[in-house]
Amino acid sequence: MSPSSPILVLDSGLGGLTVVRSLQALMPAERIVYFGDTARLPYGSKGAATVTGFVRQIIHYLLPCDPKHVVIACNTATALAMPAIRQAFCDLPVSGVIEPGAKAAVAAAGAKPIPVFGVIATEATIRSKAYERAIHRRRHHARMLLRPAPLLVPIIEEGRTAADPLVRLALKQYLEPMLRHRLDVLVLGCTHYPILKDAVAQIVGPGVPVIDSAEQCAQDVALRLRARGMCCVPSQASDGLPAGELRTFVTDDPQRFKRLASRFLGVEIDLPVLVPPDELYRQQRIEALPVSIPA
Amino acid sequence: MSPSSPILVLDSGLGGLTVVRSLQALMPAERIVYFGDTARLPYGSKGAATVTGFVRQIIHYLLPCDPKHVVIACNTATALAMPAIRQAFCDLPVSGVIEPGAKAAVAAAGAKPIPVFGVIATEATIRSKAYERAIHRRRHHARMLLRPAPLLVPIIEEGRTAADPLVRLALKQYLEPMLRHRLDVLVLGCTHYPILKDAVAQIVGPGVPVIDSAEQCAQDVALRLRARGMCCVPSQASDGLPAGELRTFVTDDPQRFKRLASRFLGVEIDLPVLVPPDELYRQQRIEALPVSIPA
Repeated sequence: MSPSSPILVLDSGLGGLTVVRSLQALMPAERIVYFGDTARLPYGSKGAATVTGFVRQIIHYLLPCDPKHVVIACNTATALAMPAIRQAFCDLPVSGVIEPGAKAAVAAAGAKPIPVFGVIATEATIRSKAYERAIHRRRHHARMLLRPAPLLVPIIEEGRTAADPLVRLALKQYLEPMLRHRLDVLVLGCTHYPILKDAVAQIVGPGVPVIDSAEQCAQDVALRLRARGMCCVPSQASDGLPAGELRTFVTDDPQRFKRLASRFLGVEIDLPVLVPPDELYRQQRIEALPVSIPA
Repeated sequence: MSPSSPILVLDSGLGGLTVVRSLQALMPAERIVYFGDTARLPYGSKGAATVTGFVRQIIHYLLPCDPKHVVIACNTATALAMPAIRQAFCDLPVSGVIEPGAKAAVAAAGAKPIPVFGVIATEATIRSKAYERAIHRRRHHARMLLRPAPLLVPIIEEGRTAADPLVRLALKQYLEPMLRHRLDVLVLGCTHYPILKDAVAQIVGPGVPVIDSAEQCAQDVALRLRARGMCCVPSQASDGLPAGELRTFVTDDPQRFKRLASRFLGVEIDLPVLVPPDELYRQQRIEALPVSIPA
């Protein structure tokens, strides 16, 4: 890998594009390869072994594009799969969305003696207690209010916006039980949710900072690349993607992905490459065959 | 296969249990094997090739239980995969939910000269035009009002009930544009929706019959088994399941499935057997290997 190698960003579907958008804003020259596992989404209601298997297959499949960094741009996958993935791909720098989100949340809480952190996320992320652990590691005395919000991903994937009364009602149902307590910081613990950030901020009010885990994740990636001297310089030539290019892969229905992606990125994308799930399984099995190693 | 062989019922998740419930009410002695593909649900937002591949794998995996009939208890899978599945498993009686639903809808419309049929279903079912074709085959002069209702499956999978204002708002948003026209019959074109049948009936009013595709599907299966002399007699011995038994398989999180299943069936079930998706792919590859056939 070299500074002109791409960053690999993966997610269950569209949500990780909020991380891509933040990466592009911070580092416009970077080549990005995005994988949305749309045939098997959502991850948020599924178990750890299942999700870890999915993520391992995706990284395996995209190793030939020689990524310089892998971003697991999905809170569920970060929560359930990160340790197993770091072990399976130990030569590859891999980062997620939860540690950067937790760090920013603790910073936003300032010097309050016992800050109260709210987190909305998928069922699987909440059940994993990943945010609790990441925040408590940084602030021993912190109170946590955790709330699974399973409808928000399908609401966003349906293309609904904050102008829709159903979206406002869902947000109120999920957030109001939290607001009955004192709340110091609210973490959007799913990369889909930044699409509704303004509506969330209106409900929680101006006194509560809303932490966008996607944005924090992108800043973390930029810091890591800078520290390794691996940032892309715009003039750098590459055999692969042109500088600043985004290439996308999906496991189902490229047209649908293309149509909805512009809501997340603010611009149109090229039609994604379709990789049916069987291809991921086949690849995995080929790799598992015994091979003769040249002397 | 024999009359004591099981009926295989498959779905993307919990929805097909509404078909199981109707089957059990009609034919309490039947052995039923249920497969919920919870690791890869929902099917409703996915493409035809993807869903057909999933269904083929599931039937393949369960062939050793020697089913006497296969029910594709999912409107999306029926709409997208039925012809390919009938071709792939030509010795196996396979039926779905759309033809029985369409037949009942046409009967409910009576002698109206140009009846107006409303259908709510998943995106994929609507896009497939399967209900349009099935109804138009029976009534050339019919008007169709089709409406994808993608939030209803996640709403039901979240465990929300018709008492929830968000559920009523979602139903109103999906149904009211239809009610601005004259509507003669409404088809619930997804096996999840019968859970909300009463709430739907309240919104459309007493003049509009609401057709439950799950119930119609079960009646169709009973007729087909009777015609073949394959109904189970309660006293029949079997090497496999006891009479009236339901055995369930899922691709993810058996605990979660067990917890939610009682809402669909009205009774508790045993913990489902977990079949991770890799096992389905592995099995498919083993079967594809060349084998020596004994002379």
